[in-house]
Amino acid sequence: MTAVDVIRTKRDGGELSTAQIDWVIDAYTKGAVADEQMSALAMAIFLNGARPREIADWTAAMIRSGITLDLSSVGRPCVDKHSTGGVGDKITLPLAPLVAAFDVAVPQLSGRGLGHTGGTLDKLESVPGFTVDLTEDQVLKQLKEIGAVICAATGDLAPADKKLYALRDITSTVESIPLIASSIMCKKIAEGADAIVLDVKVGSGAFMKDFAKAKELAETMVRLGTDHGTDTRALLTDMSVPLGRTAGNALEVRESVEVLAGGGPADVVELTVALAKEMLAAAGLPDADPAAALQDGRAMDKWRSMIAAQGGDPDAPLPTARETEEVTADADGYVTEMDAYAVGVAAWRLGAGRERQGQPVQFGAGIEILKAVGEPVQAGDPVFRLHTDTPDRFAAAKETLTGQWAVGTEPAPRGPIILDRVTA
Amino acid sequence: MTAVDVIRTKRDGGELSTAQIDWVIDAYTKGAVADEQMSALAMAIFLNGARPREIADWTAAMIRSGITLDLSSVGRPCVDKHSTGGVGDKITLPLAPLVAAFDVAVPQLSGRGLGHTGGTLDKLESVPGFTVDLTEDQVLKQLKEIGAVICAATGDLAPADKKLYALRDITSTVESIPLIASSIMCKKIAEGADAIVLDVKVGSGAFMKDFAKAKELAETMVRLGTDHGTDTRALLTDMSVPLGRTAGNALEVRESVEVLAGGGPADVVELTVALAKEMLAAAGLPDADPAAALQDGRAMDKWRSMIAAQGGDPDAPLPTARETEEVTADADGYVTEMDAYAVGVAAWRLGAGRERQGQPVQFGAGIEILKAVGEPVQAGDPVFRLHTDTPDRFAAAKETLTGQWAVGTEPAPRGPIILDRVTA
Repeated sequence: MTAVDVIRTKRDGGELSTAQIDWVIDAYTKGAVADEQMSALAMAIFLNGARPREIADWTAAMIRSGITLDLSSVGRPCVDKHSTGGVGDKITLPLAPLVAAFDVAVPQLSGRGLGHTGGTLDKLESVPGFTVDLTEDQVLKQLKEIGAVICAATGDLAPADKKLYALRDITSTVESIPLIASSIMCKKIAEGADAIVLDVKVGSGAFMKDFAKAKELAETMVRLGTDHGTDTRALLTDMSVPLGRTAGNALEVRESVEVLAGGGPADVVELTVALAKEMLAAAGLPDADPAAALQDGRAMDKWRSMIAAQGGDPDAPLPTARETEEVTADADGYVTEMDAYAVGVAAWRLGAGRERQGQPVQFGAGIEILKAVGEPVQAGDPVFRLHTDTPDRFAAAKETLTGQWAVGTEPAPRGPIILDRVTA
Repeated sequence: MTAVDVIRTKRDGGELSTAQIDWVIDAYTKGAVADEQMSALAMAIFLNGARPREIADWTAAMIRSGITLDLSSVGRPCVDKHSTGGVGDKITLPLAPLVAAFDVAVPQLSGRGLGHTGGTLDKLESVPGFTVDLTEDQVLKQLKEIGAVICAATGDLAPADKKLYALRDITSTVESIPLIASSIMCKKIAEGADAIVLDVKVGSGAFMKDFAKAKELAETMVRLGTDHGTDTRALLTDMSVPLGRTAGNALEVRESVEVLAGGGPADVVELTVALAKEMLAAAGLPDADPAAALQDGRAMDKWRSMIAAQGGDPDAPLPTARETEEVTADADGYVTEMDAYAVGVAAWRLGAGRERQGQPVQFGAGIEILKAVGEPVQAGDPVFRLHTDTPDRFAAAKETLTGQWAVGTEPAPRGPIILDRVTA
């Protein structure tokens, strides 16, 4: 078998055989298939698509490229959660301890931010002392003792995906349903949970800008998980406006703690509770009441235990940026629009995100949304508060936001957060 | 500008701007755009195509990546010829001296073989002493004094193409009309001739298997040359059966010398004369009679001068392979089919070609066709004679030929060689 033949098959619109997929993923992992060959194949898959059987084989081959975690010793049901990524999407932070409060284990092997969507690890690292680098034994111990763990995925899980993801990022082959679905699901399946709940984002701040594509992605992933024998379900949720009132690392931790304390923005609470219900149902607890656990402190207790177990100080003040500036409304009325993508890019430009892998992020940088969509505003009221350690970035962030939000005379309430649900 | 944006534009079916094309070719030449990015772009061009304006810009950018020859000092009209490559296509060997016999300069900066089509340089290097490595000054001197030169193209001509061609070869992005047309024409235009005559092959042994695609390629290249101000014309010629009776390096030199001596296979003579007429007409000699110059020794004299000027001995015996075997007919009748591609692959497997760039070739290896399409044959007659220094390859070559030629009861004459003609 040769890479040239495999690429040609897909280039010409054919279906890759199981043997071709097994071979090309294995050879790519070992370096026998070159990056330039894999990028040509990725573009051919992007443009010519892949059948469900090919996506399943591709996912299985990527799982086999590395180790699979064995969570059987944890002694409680293990439910994993994954979001396709959005602006202000801090849901993992309150969600993992909330579900763990019901004696369900939540292993969250997460990633760092790249581009306009933040990374869960970057957010948590803004908590003084917190470490995301755990050994497999430490992960298992924490799952047994506390139930919630949020840490870095090791390269030992699906190394083929790690390599391919970096390649796709520089070759404009990211937004392909077969490639996204297999990339997410190979890691989630390798993590060994009993069930997987997916939060598939739709809208300007998400990979998938339109509902039909997002639904196709959700269905593809639910099928991959189900065929593997893992209870898999997905919510399709709105990402046309930012989630909550903050985008940025420490800013989002602060908002998450508000939610864990029984407060916080309504949309963040609604989505956290909805995802918790799915996870708890998948763990055999369909009647659990996660909203109550946010109000009565059980979720907060788990959060504090999780932070402390990973070396963090839950009482330490969070980092703040050195400088802030505000963006104000120039008319009376109601906020009618606020583009999630623009807010994400502006936060990234302020220093909350990175341009290249390995760069540091500013923990205090980001954006506070003082007036959200649907809220009344008067001329001169601050709508955004921008935070950064590097004030020369204010201009770029403001330029990014210009024309991406609007004030109208009639109230335009924020649309629904949860758009659809996909199960096997 | 970033490679990711350029790739995305073409991936999404858009038209690349002149600025995007100039930037990406320049950055690729310098190494600032990585191979894996260019291969993704090549696959996107392969699958989404390119408009004439984009192909013209791409070609111009590749020309500007290197030097352009100045042939003004040669003092005679300079006419270049290019074949898209086929099995048994030794036409350059008799053609260059034939046209030079009319005081027209023919610069043939050629390539080596890769895969099933032979390379002109590999063929000529089978002549004892002959060198294909000339300096630019040596090329100009030989064009002035003799008129015909066949040598290696230097990396200084269109280095972007050299890099891209090697990349396309390993990423299944070869058979794309925009990429083939720009690759051929950037080199030909950079060679600085007054006119270019193209031999575009059609059939199983060619890049272009069907007539419509080959015609589109010919029209694209003629337009590129014409727009650049170079008289450009093309013949579409048959490559469904091998050209002549030999495929292999020294074997094809021997057949070329037969043509120069006034003999040789009718199809090779017909195509050589037809291309010579086009080249001579483009040089302002529409009434020249190249067939006569094959008969009266003028073309042979030029051949001998050219070989000697490049260090070769025109009287030295050509290399022969150590072993031969024959493939015989098992019925009486007529040869009705003989697949060019299969013959090319069989010759390559016998050692006439290389698997990887830089490998040596066997000068004596290849295939003689003892009974060509249309000729009568009796059971037991040898149809092919296989030549190699490595007799363990006979089996693979024979297997390649099996089922790829046929004997029928009715004569099926070889079809026409020249299928169409494209001019500005």
